[in-house]
Amino acid sequence: MTSEHLRTVVVDTPGGRYDIQIGSGLLQNPGTWAGLPRTTQAVIVSNPTVNALYGDPLAAAIAPLHREVSRVLLADGEAHKTWDSLNLVFDHLLARACDRKTVLYALGGGVIGDMTGFAAATYMRGVPFVQVPTTLLAQVDSSVGGKTAINHPLGKNMIGAFYQPARVVCDLATLGSLPPRELSAGLAEIIKYGPIHDMAFFDWIEAHVEALRAGDVQALAHAVQRSCEIKAAVVGEDERESGLRAILNFGHTFGHAIEAGQGYGAWLHGEAVGCGMVLAAALSAELGLVPAAFVERLTRLVQASGLPTQAPVMPDERWLELMRVDKKAEAGAIRFVLIDPPGRASLRSAPDELVLRVIHRHSAPVASAA
Amino acid sequence: MTSEHLRTVVVDTPGGRYDIQIGSGLLQNPGTWAGLPRTTQAVIVSNPTVNALYGDPLAAAIAPLHREVSRVLLADGEAHKTWDSLNLVFDHLLARACDRKTVLYALGGGVIGDMTGFAAATYMRGVPFVQVPTTLLAQVDSSVGGKTAINHPLGKNMIGAFYQPARVVCDLATLGSLPPRELSAGLAEIIKYGPIHDMAFFDWIEAHVEALRAGDVQALAHAVQRSCEIKAAVVGEDERESGLRAILNFGHTFGHAIEAGQGYGAWLHGEAVGCGMVLAAALSAELGLVPAAFVERLTRLVQASGLPTQAPVMPDERWLELMRVDKKAEAGAIRFVLIDPPGRASLRSAPDELVLRVIHRHSAPVASAA
Repeated sequence: MTSEHLRTVVVDTPGGRYDIQIGSGLLQNPGTWAGLPRTTQAVIVSNPTVNALYGDPLAAAIAPLHREVSRVLLADGEAHKTWDSLNLVFDHLLARACDRKTVLYALGGGVIGDMTGFAAATYMRGVPFVQVPTTLLAQVDSSVGGKTAINHPLGKNMIGAFYQPARVVCDLATLGSLPPRELSAGLAEIIKYGPIHDMAFFDWIEAHVEALRAGDVQALAHAVQRSCEIKAAVVGEDERESGLRAILNFGHTFGHAIEAGQGYGAWLHGEAVGCGMVLAAALSAELGLVPAAFVERLTRLVQASGLPTQAPVMPDERWLELMRVDKKAEAGAIRFVLIDPPGRASLRSAPDELVLRVIHRHSAPVASAA
Repeated sequence: MTSEHLRTVVVDTPGGRYDIQIGSGLLQNPGTWAGLPRTTQAVIVSNPTVNALYGDPLAAAIAPLHREVSRVLLADGEAHKTWDSLNLVFDHLLARACDRKTVLYALGGGVIGDMTGFAAATYMRGVPFVQVPTTLLAQVDSSVGGKTAINHPLGKNMIGAFYQPARVVCDLATLGSLPPRELSAGLAEIIKYGPIHDMAFFDWIEAHVEALRAGDVQALAHAVQRSCEIKAAVVGEDERESGLRAILNFGHTFGHAIEAGQGYGAWLHGEAVGCGMVLAAALSAELGLVPAAFVERLTRLVQASGLPTQAPVMPDERWLELMRVDKKAEAGAIRFVLIDPPGRASLRSAPDELVLRVIHRHSAPVASAA
């Protein structure tokens, strides 16, 4: 696939209107960067692994736009999505006397995107930033829609801002260097769009899961485009998650508890979400909202994607405590994104006993992601 | 003055429309809090000094709105406007499993208001907050307009967000407990509105400076109201400081350099701004924008307000380096709010030699604020 086959999805929110560009080889193509602000300074935020692969090409591609392009590299992984890491960006920006027109480029996966976005949202109360996601998960989910955040020891993404990027550039060629485990993690966030919004897309994923895992560029292009279209539609209606947007969190209430409970980084975010979706579907079935056959079908697809379907064993109180700090909780009541029927989702509470029964049925003593 | 004499100023920005209520005894009056969100949890953020005076009355006044009102106390002073202090708020909110409807009340001066606002802007990507400013400076300036921030060792207010409060409650009775040095510091931010926008108000301040320093409630009510009106008008036109709003920073380029250069807390913010206005006026005169007589007139009023008019002695390079990280700087050029003519301001650069000449002429070897 060449850049002639560029696909564009438009995101339109009160906080900003911007393009998601999807295609192979976009990073090196000068046309990709046309129209972005021309400024004195730009800073690429990345991690050492991604920077070694794509840092130089990106710096060369954006050089015509800026007098000075510098880089700051952060340690990789969810465990480093902290204030201390974020502060390295601020130190760099201030040491170079970067002004408030400085453009930040987030080159990497979800962790880099979330942290760069939050740095952009808060440096001098806001500078422009561009998302250049290099993982499947970031291309189909985290780089789109303006959620930025860092973690707190007591909860994931607890400190952050809604802040839209100036552009999102999804270069499918970067997925070629992705480890299989990370590709699978990305599939979780693609699968989720089926049960919450589009069961025809779910059918398509079932038919193409092998092609996706093999890195077939045509299949990936469609999966990224359709995921971004659905996310753009949802975020366009509800940028700040006063209602609808919460459905994008399908599988995330259980998932966040797994991630936080096992220590950030033990499970990849996508792995925890994959398993979390199975639990959320099972809870929907317990409440009579979907047939048991749907849970089995989802479980098979999650498994076929190379993702765990069994949660780790944790004490009941620990599960409940971890889920109670979820951002969707209200007045102490945990709220789940439940499916009713397949293709539609809503936010609901459920009795603790029922939730724990589902967890017990879907836990295995050895963490599946290990 | 009773709450019958309530004055209300409306702030209308893209980020939100809200009232500033100004009057004596507002804090205890239940009507003050009518219409604010009724939620499970509320948290009062304050410092030990202010909490001892007004924490209990505020908690009692808002008790009908919330099931649970808790408090978190931060160390006082600009030196504590840091991430570590801010994180005490996040620790408190997460330890109590506060959800994203939780209302934060900022009870204190500018430091408490800026930090509480930034905590509200970023906790779970945004919760509502109410400003209850108890210093003159916070009532006439920092609590209005939605600028929130913390400091970085390399620059003041470098990390923050534009985030509007749900309401601002200026209880003039709280000014009765303010030390004279803090009252004077507040006068600096009142005086600034004259040269940048309204010389008739400047005349009025000259005529009432003794009454204001003596804590005359009628005089304070007018000063707070007129200051808030001017600030609301400017912020209503330019919430995110793409242009006009920068004029509110008159005296602040020099002022921030003094604060950062002397170590946060050595000079009060208002003291640094008072002195900074004299320097900015002198620079305006050097450039032929205002007559020398205007500089003398402003200097007399700053002095009559109990504020320093001589800057501390610092090496030239230190001055320039501190001013280059100012948020108004662009492409390495320091920009000043200059007066042209009295009653109107604009953002301009000036040759370093000229800036340093003004600094040398207005520096004294012993810091005036010491």
